[in-house]
Amino acid sequence: MNERGGEMAAVVRYCAGVRDEVLEHIEAAIGAQPALEDLRAPLLDYPLRAAKGLRPALCVAAARALGASRSAALPSAAALELLHNAFLIHDDVEDESLARRGEPTLQRRYGQATAMNMGDAMLALALGPLLDNTGVIGLGPALEVLDLVRETVVVTAAGQARELEWIRQGRWDFGSDYAAAYEALVVAKTAHYSFITPVVVGATIAEVRGDARAQLAAYARHVGVAFQITDDLLNLRAAGEPGAYGKESAGDLWEGKRTLILLHALHAAGAAERDEALAILARPRPDPAALARAELIAELHAAGHLDAVARARLLGEGGDTRFKTEAEVAALMAVIEARGGLEFAAEVARAHGEQALALLGALEPWLEAGEGRDLLAALPRYVIERAR
Amino acid sequence: MNERGGEMAAVVRYCAGVRDEVLEHIEAAIGAQPALEDLRAPLLDYPLRAAKGLRPALCVAAARALGASRSAALPSAAALELLHNAFLIHDDVEDESLARRGEPTLQRRYGQATAMNMGDAMLALALGPLLDNTGVIGLGPALEVLDLVRETVVVTAAGQARELEWIRQGRWDFGSDYAAAYEALVVAKTAHYSFITPVVVGATIAEVRGDARAQLAAYARHVGVAFQITDDLLNLRAAGEPGAYGKESAGDLWEGKRTLILLHALHAAGAAERDEALAILARPRPDPAALARAELIAELHAAGHLDAVARARLLGEGGDTRFKTEAEVAALMAVIEARGGLEFAAEVARAHGEQALALLGALEPWLEAGEGRDLLAALPRYVIERAR
Repeated sequence: MNERGGEMAAVVRYCAGVRDEVLEHIEAAIGAQPALEDLRAPLLDYPLRAAKGLRPALCVAAARALGASRSAALPSAAALELLHNAFLIHDDVEDESLARRGEPTLQRRYGQATAMNMGDAMLALALGPLLDNTGVIGLGPALEVLDLVRETVVVTAAGQARELEWIRQGRWDFGSDYAAAYEALVVAKTAHYSFITPVVVGATIAEVRGDARAQLAAYARHVGVAFQITDDLLNLRAAGEPGAYGKESAGDLWEGKRTLILLHALHAAGAAERDEALAILARPRPDPAALARAELIAELHAAGHLDAVARARLLGEGGDTRFKTEAEVAALMAVIEARGGLEFAAEVARAHGEQALALLGALEPWLEAGEGRDLLAALPRYVIERAR
Repeated sequence: MNERGGEMAAVVRYCAGVRDEVLEHIEAAIGAQPALEDLRAPLLDYPLRAAKGLRPALCVAAARALGASRSAALPSAAALELLHNAFLIHDDVEDESLARRGEPTLQRRYGQATAMNMGDAMLALALGPLLDNTGVIGLGPALEVLDLVRETVVVTAAGQARELEWIRQGRWDFGSDYAAAYEALVVAKTAHYSFITPVVVGATIAEVRGDARAQLAAYARHVGVAFQITDDLLNLRAAGEPGAYGKESAGDLWEGKRTLILLHALHAAGAAERDEALAILARPRPDPAALARAELIAELHAAGHLDAVARARLLGEGGDTRFKTEAEVAALMAVIEARGGLEFAAEVARAHGEQALALLGALEPWLEAGEGRDLLAALPRYVIERAR
């Protein structure tokens, strides 16, 4: 194994180690609630699925690198992992996603109401370790961590709301500032709770504030943007390889997600090409009611009940019978490829990774040598080079 | 106005007064988050709708009656109202409800994803006043209140999960213990966060613990059960009067909700009558996909594309084309009326009200005279006699 491969393996190993300890905390938090006795299976479903465990590892690594003990950081790390899983559960319902980490989404397994409910329970469960924190890291830091977690839930919800508003407005045009609009969005809806809050919580546990904490947050912001761009790339790269990626194949194109890849391609496209892509993107993905109708029409047509004219009339009436098709999603992919959307996004991710490393370099005087610092140093490359 | 009418009016007035102050706290909590600037409308939508405001009033009244100041209780009361609104938003999504407090549900106004998202944001917003509490009621009580709120979210989610599990199993038979099963459920899913937690939080703010606090919790449990039974009665009584009640008309029967009214009627019914009712209850209410399919079949039949045989075959295939009908819901209502379900439930609610008053009587030595104690004394009758 070469040096770089060794560094990647070390990240995976560190994350897995923290994850095992965090899962013990999560199981204990659930076990401490007699009311949840019958709900262990749905509550532990997502947390136990194969996952990278980046968020808790980042929290522990930041705390360690700044001089705190591993055990001081574990309750907060567990809370961040519970928060993350609560968001995943609710997001999957909101997006009507089919698969998560290679398995059916929680709402497909237990129904939408139970999934929503488990997400709410998990948000409350996250408060358990944070309240216990008063006896672990002291009152002041514990209250500060609680406030950081409260804030990040608000920021994340506001970020998601901004994206939903763009979708509602059918907004795709951000002028030449499209990269800035994309970055502000992904920081609010993903990077804040996944990267910035874990390191800021870690610094708070180590009682490090001021410039060092702010600089570590800036580092995490860059890592988070690089992570999300890479996630978007993996979503599209897996389009031809079902099963290679835990989520739906090219789900971002079906959903019409504002990714940097797509925004760049639309910006670089010719007028006619862009208009056609926007027309496709304006169509919703098929919903259950529409699918039921379309399937029945096809069935009746095949059985001879409907001639081609009747069929066309039924399919054409009302805007709600026009949905994205496989061919249209493939056409979007072709625009992306022709306009270098993947290459552009990969380059931006790489630049964010470099900025993260530069910020970390400037933090050197504050950092203690050890596994924590090593993780922070390896993470920018890891989030970009990972295969899932 | 007679004495009883005066007492009812006093409850309404007290609740409205607390509600006004609580809404100021809620607006301030939202205003303190720059990220939420564009989200004031969806966030304030439910809180601003005409509502009784029982939960915050109960918290303030309990605190006042036990010797705390009104201002000490208001942040906690605001948090409880935010929690309640978050639950309402998520419940309406889970139940696919159409109306809330006489207006369209939040998901009909803003879409399901935004509604879920606003519910999550509101759960986080509830933490704001609870963290500020450290400067209002002192550190110990503030942390205790946080833990009570954490606990009640868990209990509520577990209660909802129990109900969903009954629905999944198609469970209607609770033997002769049906009233106990109903009560345990409504305590967990509604009364705990709506009645028990508000008074226990109020007592904590007044730094009253031990027997007095436990007895006040028992009082609130009885009030909560009486409240929910009355809610169930209002849901069915409004069946013939659209608009009289904020929620859907007879929605409980369409949903197949396990109400004391229905459980009693099923228990009292003859075997054939019960079997027919259970067969109706086993059918889901129409969902959008099924409705789209059924409408298309009807349309094609009317247009001459489908003969009666083809139509019957299409409607008959798969259990998912059989849904509850208006006539079937009316048949359920007839069983309830024949078996005295409404009268039985009303009698049980009355008995809970009396038990609440008896417990309050035993608390007399702890209670200070004033509006707070007056509210606690009037509430058991109010929750039963209210018209909405």
